[in-house]
Amino acid sequence: MSDLLAPEALERRLREVGETRYHHLHPFQLRLQSGECSRGEVEAWALNRYLYQACIPQKDAHILARMEDAGMRREWRQRIIDHDGEREGEGGIAKWLKLTDDLGLDRADVMSGRLALPATKFAVNAYLSFVKDRSLLEAIASSLTELFSPMVIKTRVAGMLSNYDYVTPETLAYFTARPVQAKRDSDFALAYVLENARTPAEQQAAIGALEFKCSMLWAMLDALEHAYIYAQPWPDAFKPADAVRREAAE
Amino acid sequence: MSDLLAPEALERRLREVGETRYHHLHPFQLRLQSGECSRGEVEAWALNRYLYQACIPQKDAHILARMEDAGMRREWRQRIIDHDGEREGEGGIAKWLKLTDDLGLDRADVMSGRLALPATKFAVNAYLSFVKDRSLLEAIASSLTELFSPMVIKTRVAGMLSNYDYVTPETLAYFTARPVQAKRDSDFALAYVLENARTPAEQQAAIGALEFKCSMLWAMLDALEHAYIYAQPWPDAFKPADAVRREAAE
Repeated sequence: MSDLLAPEALERRLREVGETRYHHLHPFQLRLQSGECSRGEVEAWALNRYLYQACIPQKDAHILARMEDAGMRREWRQRIIDHDGEREGEGGIAKWLKLTDDLGLDRADVMSGRLALPATKFAVNAYLSFVKDRSLLEAIASSLTELFSPMVIKTRVAGMLSNYDYVTPETLAYFTARPVQAKRDSDFALAYVLENARTPAEQQAAIGALEFKCSMLWAMLDALEHAYIYAQPWPDAFKPADAVRREAAE
Repeated sequence: MSDLLAPEALERRLREVGETRYHHLHPFQLRLQSGECSRGEVEAWALNRYLYQACIPQKDAHILARMEDAGMRREWRQRIIDHDGEREGEGGIAKWLKLTDDLGLDRADVMSGRLALPATKFAVNAYLSFVKDRSLLEAIASSLTELFSPMVIKTRVAGMLSNYDYVTPETLAYFTARPVQAKRDSDFALAYVLENARTPAEQQAAIGALEFKCSMLWAMLDALEHAYIYAQPWPDAFKPADAVRREAAE
């Protein structure tokens, strides 16, 4: 049985989850930002991560649907606007498609998800199920990975810009807006969790929700690393043009 | 747009999915049956696959709940009985626990799933979502991997018995009953799919359901291979005693 933590201690535990389990520590993330990824690996990363980006407004709509307070819903709905934009071509998802466009990926392939790794689909599906099936507190706590995203975004953008000549600041426009949005969103979510996790069980559930979310982001990178570095992708998944050329030459 | 296939052609396509995508082709499966797995890898396999075994009666109950015909339900309910048994200690799940017991794994660890890889949990969760959310035809078609299981079971059992001195026929008792059950179950499911996939779209959906199921079994082995052979397991996942000893010695 866990003890009831003071808000500061709970916040410390949550930040500790990020320090030890957030994907800034993942070997694929380190490879991506240090310029060691092949062009095909960057493409596979962008194509697979699109499914995660695309699920965010649906995830937030599930959370919104469970909020009984109009003030909270007004705060939370901004997340949906940020990702879906005010009109066609705007918002986070459109900016992610700018990235996949610039990498030369076909939009229909990207948007359909048909070339994504099965493990990517299962991870995204697990995230949507989590915010639907668990308590509102856990659903909100699972969003707290945004506490840690500003640091990884800065390093990723700088690393990608200096290492990949096909990546421009416009290609990475998605990330420009994110640190400010992520700070605003995670401040709100953290305050909610610290205020509403009032029993040891609720506090442990909130910590577990953040661990779950970290494990989901981690599993997506594991799957990329496995398929595109150590082993082979699932037969129906994306094959980078450079890998196809290499095979043909063998 | 696909053409409507004659039943024989649809059956051929379904068998082709198995020949090209079933996990009898997976490197981890080949390693397991050829005796190349370390004791820790066999333990990790058994511990993770427990979650899949344990979800089977729930998966079948979801399918049962969607059947409107008493005759079909009478056929299908046998699957639940096979896995849950007539009484405590019987049935497929209990036999799988005999395997994890003999490997020296703690039952509470195995049954709680707390040491399973996140990707295993996501794959199992995806399977449960699939049979709940897709059509009954697709849910039934996803069970057709059992068409291919008798062949893999025979090779796996023979390979494990001859290569791992800690594995006895009693350890692998789960697999003794499965080929007969799988033959009976897949004969029924195949006849249902061939009879009820009456439009090109339904036929493609049935083929896609079997591909999904194969991808889910494949992703579970990918995750094991990644975590226990190429990279590192998620911090909260199972660490085999031999790996812990190796680390301590370094």
